[in-house]
Amino acid sequence: MTVFSTHYSPLHHFTTHYSPPHRMVVTIIGIGLIGGSLALSLKEAGLAHHIIGVDRSPEHQRQAVALGLIDEPETDLAAAVRRADLVVVAVPMDAMLTVLPQVLDAATDRQVVIDVGSTKAALLARVDQHPQRDRFVAVHPMAGTEYSGPLAAVPGLFRGKTLVVCDAARSANDALARVEAVFGRLAMQLVYMDAAAHDLHTAYISHISHITSFALALTVLEKEKEEQQIFALASGGFESTVRLAKSSPDMWVPIFRQNRVNVLDVLDEHIHQLQYLRHLLAQEDYSALHQQIQQANLIKKMLK
Amino acid sequence: MTVFSTHYSPLHHFTTHYSPPHRMVVTIIGIGLIGGSLALSLKEAGLAHHIIGVDRSPEHQRQAVALGLIDEPETDLAAAVRRADLVVVAVPMDAMLTVLPQVLDAATDRQVVIDVGSTKAALLARVDQHPQRDRFVAVHPMAGTEYSGPLAAVPGLFRGKTLVVCDAARSANDALARVEAVFGRLAMQLVYMDAAAHDLHTAYISHISHITSFALALTVLEKEKEEQQIFALASGGFESTVRLAKSSPDMWVPIFRQNRVNVLDVLDEHIHQLQYLRHLLAQEDYSALHQQIQQANLIKKMLK
Repeated sequence: MTVFSTHYSPLHHFTTHYSPPHRMVVTIIGIGLIGGSLALSLKEAGLAHHIIGVDRSPEHQRQAVALGLIDEPETDLAAAVRRADLVVVAVPMDAMLTVLPQVLDAATDRQVVIDVGSTKAALLARVDQHPQRDRFVAVHPMAGTEYSGPLAAVPGLFRGKTLVVCDAARSANDALARVEAVFGRLAMQLVYMDAAAHDLHTAYISHISHITSFALALTVLEKEKEEQQIFALASGGFESTVRLAKSSPDMWVPIFRQNRVNVLDVLDEHIHQLQYLRHLLAQEDYSALHQQIQQANLIKKMLK
Repeated sequence: MTVFSTHYSPLHHFTTHYSPPHRMVVTIIGIGLIGGSLALSLKEAGLAHHIIGVDRSPEHQRQAVALGLIDEPETDLAAAVRRADLVVVAVPMDAMLTVLPQVLDAATDRQVVIDVGSTKAALLARVDQHPQRDRFVAVHPMAGTEYSGPLAAVPGLFRGKTLVVCDAARSANDALARVEAVFGRLAMQLVYMDAAAHDLHTAYISHISHITSFALALTVLEKEKEEQQIFALASGGFESTVRLAKSSPDMWVPIFRQNRVNVLDVLDEHIHQLQYLRHLLAQEDYSALHQQIQQANLIKKMLK
């Protein structure tokens, strides 16, 4: 595994010169927070001429049409793929392992297929030997909210954010170039790494945040029964740390499952840090506690 | 201890009729995030005619004048207290234990004195027998940011937020009425409870959030050395959960120290919850993990 093989592909440097495909037909499979928001962004940037939406939930299909996220609902997956220039697979990670191979089964050399999934190693292993593997580009937009479904779609979600492109060398040059052009036009910063590095780093900067937030919510719910009272006291700090605890288990359990080894490793380190802070407080070693908090303050350098 | 003795004082109901003291002289001791923001709010509401600022840091004094937070810097604490209608003590909780008695030593029956501290039991015990105890009203505005010092002061910080008033029966009626009128005019919602209940509940909805955030920052800093890379990947979720880790140890170590028993209790529960989630993931019990996350989702009801 490359520990952190970030590098900018030479292609990245001429995305402003490379003409992105205008007026594409785009098929989005899974029209939730990410799929729906991407639909809005592609339309706003003038990149999508017609958007076909596929979702196993008829209710989500209806909402996606009503909200103007998609132009046309479709239930035939293969037909929806074959009519598209760009296919976006934006389903939860458990469904992703089944749906992405089906999409590649239907794809020809005319389509470019992307996923937008939060874990990569298991998914890329699943399609590693697929004959159409080179039509697929694995990407992960580092953007989202704690909400889900078509109603959670928001414009401008991706602007200025990072897009991780995984194992780019496994994609055909024209497929990679199209993806780079599209997301460059959405004002995303592209970062390249292999799937193993991606899964390790997202465990640290995304997955663990969700677990701590779920655990914090459970802690408070366990001890505090008079909810209305807490509601009155909760200030911005509390809301900030438990915001992610509103996130859907349907989305997050498959992520934790597919990134289980990394998540357990980070979780062990996090529990260790909490136990050390607890030890310092129990021992009334306030000087060492002060030092630990000063050390934690260094996180400032890493945030925008 | 009253477990949660929230009630609205009868006085609260006629704060709109009670005429708040206009054009008060206000002395603020400690002109940081809270003291400075309160200065801005009191001026904006037309409640403060003249603001005297006391801060042990000459640099903070200068900044407070330059930023227009105070009208007059003062170094003589007793003189600053005696000239005021309202005295606000907004220093870190360790200094608070020394400064508040000094302020009450200087206070006459003409002054109303408030603290804005994050812990109450130790402080109220400290001044319990003070002859001027009834000039003091213990309040805690549930508002703040992760920044500190005069430069962190922001207008409108308190609007719509909750003000906890502790052990209100220990304050003189006129002192309590003045405090209720002032914070009512700042559009705060007043909640009443005893000091023990306050310290228990703030451990849950404020102090533990800071500890988890510090621990999360330490976790990431421990494992991730290539900071620039993390910076690129960090999305809104991560920033949200580690935001509080920027908070100053000078402010937070004294809070943890004074609320040590409650914080240890909550921390034990939080570590237990994390260990249980870890156990479910390690055992691959995804059904139970799903249930736990659904349970955590109930936190939605408690947030605005």
